[in-house]
Amino acid sequence: MIKLEVDLGERSYPIFIGSGLLGQAGLVRPHVHGKRALIVTNEVVAPLYLAQLKGALGDVQCDHLVLPDGEHTKTLATLGTIYDKLLADRHERSTTLIALGGGVVGDITGFAAATYQRGVNFIQVPTTLLSQVDSSVGGKTGVNHPLGKNMIGAFYQPQCVVADTDVLASLPDRELKAGIAEVIKYGLIDNLPFFAWLESNIDGLLVGDKTLLAEAVKVSCEEKARIVAADEKEGGVRALLNLGHTFGHAIETAMGYGTWLHGEAVGAGMVMATDLSARLGWLDMDAAARAKALLQRAGLPVAPPSGMSADDFMRLMAFDKKVQGGKIRFILLRGLGKAVIESGVDATLLQQTLEAGDNLCQR
Amino acid sequence: MIKLEVDLGERSYPIFIGSGLLGQAGLVRPHVHGKRALIVTNEVVAPLYLAQLKGALGDVQCDHLVLPDGEHTKTLATLGTIYDKLLADRHERSTTLIALGGGVVGDITGFAAATYQRGVNFIQVPTTLLSQVDSSVGGKTGVNHPLGKNMIGAFYQPQCVVADTDVLASLPDRELKAGIAEVIKYGLIDNLPFFAWLESNIDGLLVGDKTLLAEAVKVSCEEKARIVAADEKEGGVRALLNLGHTFGHAIETAMGYGTWLHGEAVGAGMVMATDLSARLGWLDMDAAARAKALLQRAGLPVAPPSGMSADDFMRLMAFDKKVQGGKIRFILLRGLGKAVIESGVDATLLQQTLEAGDNLCQR
Repeated sequence: MIKLEVDLGERSYPIFIGSGLLGQAGLVRPHVHGKRALIVTNEVVAPLYLAQLKGALGDVQCDHLVLPDGEHTKTLATLGTIYDKLLADRHERSTTLIALGGGVVGDITGFAAATYQRGVNFIQVPTTLLSQVDSSVGGKTGVNHPLGKNMIGAFYQPQCVVADTDVLASLPDRELKAGIAEVIKYGLIDNLPFFAWLESNIDGLLVGDKTLLAEAVKVSCEEKARIVAADEKEGGVRALLNLGHTFGHAIETAMGYGTWLHGEAVGAGMVMATDLSARLGWLDMDAAARAKALLQRAGLPVAPPSGMSADDFMRLMAFDKKVQGGKIRFILLRGLGKAVIESGVDATLLQQTLEAGDNLCQR
Repeated sequence: MIKLEVDLGERSYPIFIGSGLLGQAGLVRPHVHGKRALIVTNEVVAPLYLAQLKGALGDVQCDHLVLPDGEHTKTLATLGTIYDKLLADRHERSTTLIALGGGVVGDITGFAAATYQRGVNFIQVPTTLLSQVDSSVGGKTGVNHPLGKNMIGAFYQPQCVVADTDVLASLPDRELKAGIAEVIKYGLIDNLPFFAWLESNIDGLLVGDKTLLAEAVKVSCEEKARIVAADEKEGGVRALLNLGHTFGHAIETAMGYGTWLHGEAVGAGMVMATDLSARLGWLDMDAAARAKALLQRAGLPVAPPSGMSADDFMRLMAFDKKVQGGKIRFILLRGLGKAVIESGVDATLLQQTLEAGDNLCQR
């Protein structure tokens, strides 16, 4: 087992990564401070892991709530059902909420914890690659609004994160690939050696090689923990983690939440960000093509949905949380492993990227 | 104008108290850090003060949202309408939410600010006595749930609080009295000289004497600011501010939100807490009668609703946020001006208080 620390002063917490952690008695239990907990999970994960997790919680009096699966459930209405359950079962301020699932379950459960009785403890038990390498770490919680993704939420840190790499074996192929998109992101942002490692090992990762996946989760969590510790509330450097997300969120909102998986939209979004960086002359076209090639080998979409026009993108990106003074801020690349934040992007070049379709990152 | 400071380190902020502040150019403006603001108000307050406040905001681009009046609007559904407005008008993270109204508007607007795009700035402009002396200061924000008051929310501090005492002249008599309940609370908790001052000046306060009201707001805000600075998130001493609230919230929930005003329910609740303190032998009956007499002179209810049984109270108080390990924690008096927190209250004595009806605080 690997133990990392997210260093946030009094809000610091550990990330445990390893095999067989979910059912390990004594691992999660010390992080539940009261006598009761509510496990929030979904219909896909519950049959696989709920009993195992409850077993590991020993004397904690555990209730559970099973949500439908999918991004379309990440709404204020679903949040209301968590509050209803907590109150109907008379959970007090001393309760702990445990998110057992992927990013949707983690985000909505974290937000419920941030706001139930003005804040109760919570624990992240991510069961997808995407949530293990990204969304479970760093305290971003929230729900979607019809006009924009993650528009309602809070920064609220968990007591701990338990990433059991065994669960990745049960992950559908499509979900595994979506998670690899966020893994590749860390390489592109600021870790060129890791990007190169991914180029060498992408085939092994895609067939679920346990050792390789554990290594990818570890490096990703190290990156995330370091960046979050430097900038918890995204005043600066943390925004780099949104590489591909401005384009990606627009895709998710346009297609209807859940039609494209988040990682898929981010995959295409990263190709678009890379393309725009190349058009700006910040990245040579070979490097851009290299980024696209890795995402393509990972089985991710490398072009936006054919039905989306440049106007669709412009309209939806105007709602992005990173918009400042009406200007869209993009995360772009000054080289592989060298992401930067940029507001003043030339409109003509942006238009070219939005219209490039299947020809992104090509001469 | 009086300026007080709520001392919370990097979350510190000023409270401005005085006459004519609402329309004073240059007072609120410096606390709006971006170019845009959304003023959230209600149908009663908007015609009186909205134009005046907008005028004082000079170059800030102000949108506004007018909510229905009353405690029954403090729901997740109403919160949703604030998010809808913010997104439809494309408010960015740099926007400021301004709460112009009483406790309901302040609580729900503060919670919207705490959670829109994971947190934007907000300003409290309280227009009722109750919100000026209590709810606008200290960062408790939230909405009600059918099963319990203020069950969903966050601790989130404003940029400043502007209490214009002129607005109290337009306050309906019933609202003024409800506010005085919270003023009397500060005397009962830890300020016997202030309690005695209120005994001497209650008649003047009730007819709206401006000088007396300004003094009452000032002392109340000083008390609140001091207690909040000592214990922002209610780990200890801040709970004393809930004197009368455990009983009071049960009354509000039982009667339907808004049937009794919050201050009215707290008034009756404080008589119940005083009665229970006397039954425990902590307060002599003369002191208890003195507390009841002042609340009665203030025109507040001094008995619970006749339709509420002891069982109703027990059932509803079980949902209180202060419940720990199934035990209800009460705020009680060890003397006038000497409130304490107590969990292990004798069930028989509690039952007697719940059944005393019109005979509370009597031998």
